[in-house]
Amino acid sequence: MPKPSKFDTLIAPYRHAAPSRRFALAAIDPSAKPLSSGDGDRDKAQVEALAVELDALQDRLYADRRYKLLVVLQGLDTSGKDGTLRHVFGRMSPLGVRCVSWKAPSDAERAHDPWWRIHQAVPGAGEIVVFNRSHYEDVLVPVVQGTLAPADTALRYRQINDFERMLHETGTVICKFMLHLSKDEQRRRLQARLDDPDKRWKFNADDLVVRRRWNDYQKAYAAAIAATGTRWAPWTIVPADSKTHRNLMIALLLKRELERLDLRYPAGDPALRGKRIR
Amino acid sequence: MPKPSKFDTLIAPYRHAAPSRRFALAAIDPSAKPLSSGDGDRDKAQVEALAVELDALQDRLYADRRYKLLVVLQGLDTSGKDGTLRHVFGRMSPLGVRCVSWKAPSDAERAHDPWWRIHQAVPGAGEIVVFNRSHYEDVLVPVVQGTLAPADTALRYRQINDFERMLHETGTVICKFMLHLSKDEQRRRLQARLDDPDKRWKFNADDLVVRRRWNDYQKAYAAAIAATGTRWAPWTIVPADSKTHRNLMIALLLKRELERLDLRYPAGDPALRGKRIR
Repeated sequence: MPKPSKFDTLIAPYRHAAPSRRFALAAIDPSAKPLSSGDGDRDKAQVEALAVELDALQDRLYADRRYKLLVVLQGLDTSGKDGTLRHVFGRMSPLGVRCVSWKAPSDAERAHDPWWRIHQAVPGAGEIVVFNRSHYEDVLVPVVQGTLAPADTALRYRQINDFERMLHETGTVICKFMLHLSKDEQRRRLQARLDDPDKRWKFNADDLVVRRRWNDYQKAYAAAIAATGTRWAPWTIVPADSKTHRNLMIALLLKRELERLDLRYPAGDPALRGKRIR
Repeated sequence: MPKPSKFDTLIAPYRHAAPSRRFALAAIDPSAKPLSSGDGDRDKAQVEALAVELDALQDRLYADRRYKLLVVLQGLDTSGKDGTLRHVFGRMSPLGVRCVSWKAPSDAERAHDPWWRIHQAVPGAGEIVVFNRSHYEDVLVPVVQGTLAPADTALRYRQINDFERMLHETGTVICKFMLHLSKDEQRRRLQARLDDPDKRWKFNADDLVVRRRWNDYQKAYAAAIAATGTRWAPWTIVPADSKTHRNLMIALLLKRELERLDLRYPAGDPALRGKRIR
């Protein structure tokens, strides 16, 4: 194990990497900015520079082909999943990154086990796939709606851990982010959506139904994180009230994970050295 | 029909939008720069500005959900398909754009009709999908290898036209680009790949086999364009010796196509106007 860096120390309170009975989500302040320089403009410039660095790392990941990267973005409405996609992944060529936005399963999908449709979407060699919502949503929603019994919930989380372990063992780096928003900030963002005629289409009456179950969702998220934070697929709880700091934390963590892989451009056939093309 | 603009006039010689018996690919100069300002740096800055404009148009396309955009990129090795993805589509959020890189079909894919795997990958409402190579490759390769008889080739192209017409009729805008490179420029680019240790992995001994069939590929491309340039899915032949001008031409054409759609943000539910969130 490498010696923990300053970054590791700062980020440790936001990481959960070993299954436990409880996880104190409420202890994490959604407005915290542990990685900020203290200057918003400087943080924003750092995010932009990181997005370009991540693009270069993606190019190496793609060429190297030993690894795959699966990024899971979970969080309630307006917590910033789309913004993360734009600001952290938005400088990569579409050649190497793919986003999968999960909706409620179709009839054909319901006719299979819950991991069937997920498995079809996981990254191949050299690829980055971002799950915009994920297989976690398929457990969180029925838990809150009361349609999944506690024993079945535990079973599902064990199945997730097994599935994610298999992905890890076959070369997939898994980074799971829970975008942790305060209830107040969600109110402000939903209101802004309503008040802006160009954004009103994003507003869904269901968002308010979900908002009324705020505490149930916080509880369900805490239980999900407790059960599925593993060595092979840890959770990072990202304070999400600040958009810039949210991007900064996710980008720094992804950069660290990709740099750890020591990605290399393959050498190419040595017989080609010095060859002239006609 | 709107009155042809200056852009339409300049680009007309590079468009093919009605099936014909022959298409004179050789008459198009791969080093032409009909849309250039004459200043390379200025052209490059325009491409960057267009990539940002295309990102904004993509956001509207996604919100509007009346249309889908399918972009086909065809061209020989080093003609610039990956570079186009990076420079023209690289500023869009992965949320709204998806790249499909086609390889030789698998056994399961060969067990179906040739359009089966293609159909699964076409864009859904509001989506942009870029085919990096495409269903055309599945005809061009066997034509050059001599394993597809002329009558079967004609049948395939009729099937492509029918398939693309159906996509057009169901809301898909189809833009097909043939990246038209000179044999000399390909030699330079292949040599540069070989000489750069970080790029040598991209070099495939098969690239030289294909290069030896240069004239056969030019002939096969000309026949494909002649047969499948339609009103609903026209071809644009993009001079590809200049990377910047290639990006400029593609970006300008896509901008024009998207602007024609008069994309709008949906109004949202009028009952939501003035609502306060609690």
